[in-house]
Amino acid sequence: MEPDPALFEENERTAPKEDQRMYFDAGALDLERGGHLPSVTVAYETWGEFDPVRSNAIVICHALSGDSHAIGWWDRLIGPGKAIDTDRYFVIGTNALGGCQGTTGPASLAPDGRRYGSRFPFITVGDMVEVQMRLIANLGIERLLAVAGGSMGGMMALEWTLRLPGLVEKAWITASGRAHNAMQIGYNEAARQAVLRDPKWRSGDYPEDEPPAEGLAVARMIGHLSYLSESSFERKFGRRRQTEIRADADPEQFQVEGYLAHQGDKFAHRFDAGSLIVLSRAIDAYERQSLAGSLSEYLFTSFTSDTLYPSHQSETLHALALAAGCRSEWHDIDLPYGHDAFLLDGDVQGERVRAFLAAGR
Amino acid sequence: MEPDPALFEENERTAPKEDQRMYFDAGALDLERGGHLPSVTVAYETWGEFDPVRSNAIVICHALSGDSHAIGWWDRLIGPGKAIDTDRYFVIGTNALGGCQGTTGPASLAPDGRRYGSRFPFITVGDMVEVQMRLIANLGIERLLAVAGGSMGGMMALEWTLRLPGLVEKAWITASGRAHNAMQIGYNEAARQAVLRDPKWRSGDYPEDEPPAEGLAVARMIGHLSYLSESSFERKFGRRRQTEIRADADPEQFQVEGYLAHQGDKFAHRFDAGSLIVLSRAIDAYERQSLAGSLSEYLFTSFTSDTLYPSHQSETLHALALAAGCRSEWHDIDLPYGHDAFLLDGDVQGERVRAFLAAGR
Repeated sequence: MEPDPALFEENERTAPKEDQRMYFDAGALDLERGGHLPSVTVAYETWGEFDPVRSNAIVICHALSGDSHAIGWWDRLIGPGKAIDTDRYFVIGTNALGGCQGTTGPASLAPDGRRYGSRFPFITVGDMVEVQMRLIANLGIERLLAVAGGSMGGMMALEWTLRLPGLVEKAWITASGRAHNAMQIGYNEAARQAVLRDPKWRSGDYPEDEPPAEGLAVARMIGHLSYLSESSFERKFGRRRQTEIRADADPEQFQVEGYLAHQGDKFAHRFDAGSLIVLSRAIDAYERQSLAGSLSEYLFTSFTSDTLYPSHQSETLHALALAAGCRSEWHDIDLPYGHDAFLLDGDVQGERVRAFLAAGR
Repeated sequence: MEPDPALFEENERTAPKEDQRMYFDAGALDLERGGHLPSVTVAYETWGEFDPVRSNAIVICHALSGDSHAIGWWDRLIGPGKAIDTDRYFVIGTNALGGCQGTTGPASLAPDGRRYGSRFPFITVGDMVEVQMRLIANLGIERLLAVAGGSMGGMMALEWTLRLPGLVEKAWITASGRAHNAMQIGYNEAARQAVLRDPKWRSGDYPEDEPPAEGLAVARMIGHLSYLSESSFERKFGRRRQTEIRADADPEQFQVEGYLAHQGDKFAHRFDAGSLIVLSRAIDAYERQSLAGSLSEYLFTSFTSDTLYPSHQSETLHALALAAGCRSEWHDIDLPYGHDAFLLDGDVQGERVRAFLAAGR
């Protein structure tokens, strides 16, 4: 497929409007690795309407830096008339447990009125899904039409199909895998070390107005190195200098340098360092050897230029789904945008997702 | 070619023995970008003997974190009976200008007795080669049999063939390119930002005993992410835990995490943060559009698994050499070690290099 020049541009993740968010009190939570949270709040948003028997609900799971505002960061896929059609489906976006956009995470206040910080326990992808399941039950939904997610969100979607088989009819999992390989863990670890080695990290107990912003910015730069492909870097920046944008820039500075600094600083402003640590550890720890027992139908998509979640990881998921006796399809999409393609591509993914959701209805 | 399991191991760069080093006073240096150094010292080492007419000299150029001890970090290629045979050739290793292993760099003392630090000027690959040229002239060498280098060293070797055509008979350039692409600059910039955002960086004017070690360690971790390939990460570490090595380790910690931290801290101990900034900026700035005018013969090698200096960059150099009317060969080597292959592979490169150096003699 011919790449769309506009899609080499950053998909600016729009900040959710506070007033769209709803909050659900999920109660106390015993965690898979042994920790305990006395109270969990889930921030969520919904779009569309239930059908008469509430059989048209779709849960959207976000990637590491995402939030409940799925219609924002996945605006190419979710909305009226789009692949995940809010005129047909009841779509639910939630902020993941451990996040920092309204759901309980390290920056949230513990019952003692102080931030959790270093006291926030080790959480798993299973814990994140458990909290979403409570929300779904509270919304009166007995069975989901689908779960969908990319990257970390793909692991959450996968976990949805395995924890309580039968609860989810279909799962669309994009640019994800059954477990991180050593390189994926390595990227996450370098990002974590950038935060942990910032003196302002203070073992995780930094005040709200003095976060480890420099370390967090570097962590995000490391992330961006893994999200783009060689060709998307080249197309966006090449060897162009900052002086082409600002005449007073350092004549030796390249545009890619300004881009990384901008992305890093913007992220440090909107995201919590503790959430980065907790969420990245959860996905590094995630591992499924088999999909045995699943009663769901799967759609896997991957991108040939994605070096962070390489296509063979989706191929493996597809093989595991078939081995488990599930219906499954896998499409390896030839687009040059790197890992970011799962956010940027509405067309190719969209066509597959639209057909996948409509089949049998 | 079947990969050698042992070569997935780190090529531990042995520290040079101080007493092997010699020092050459290269005098004052006006720099390409306009700066000036009142005095430049070059640390160098030699192996082998001159032939009667001094026509058997080979200059070895190191990569960003290397040093003059080429027989250490390229021990698979340099030595008695090896591809770069010290029984036949007079081999010279130098520490690059801007480095921190004996040659003048940001950590060196300026004439006022204080470290250069932030006063160290912007240097180029051309400046580095200029300093080497003065050393070669001082050694009484009128013409080099060859220059050789990988990564940054490959750029230096390329520059040798272009500054004074005829000075170099042959150039072996491995895992390198004619200019960095946006992704290569991006990796370097993220590493630089890790250093520059460490409060101990102090604009480059940190005391010797209080360097920005945490930022420098993170910078090195970023480097390692780009040096390995997915398969070498997988082979070395997979999802194995640290507890397999040390029973008292954090049960959630992966071996790749321990590896990155170890590599980062080891590097911060032996390398100067200012040198990282200065040298990485020099190679990001380097760019050659053509090899026109060159009178050298070229051997280019690249590695299919090298994502940092992808094979097409060597292919382009080969095409430019042919376009300039030079004899040239390019070999894309199918080994799974990533960019590090240029240090790890003695066999395949060795065979090519041995034949290349011997041809016509």
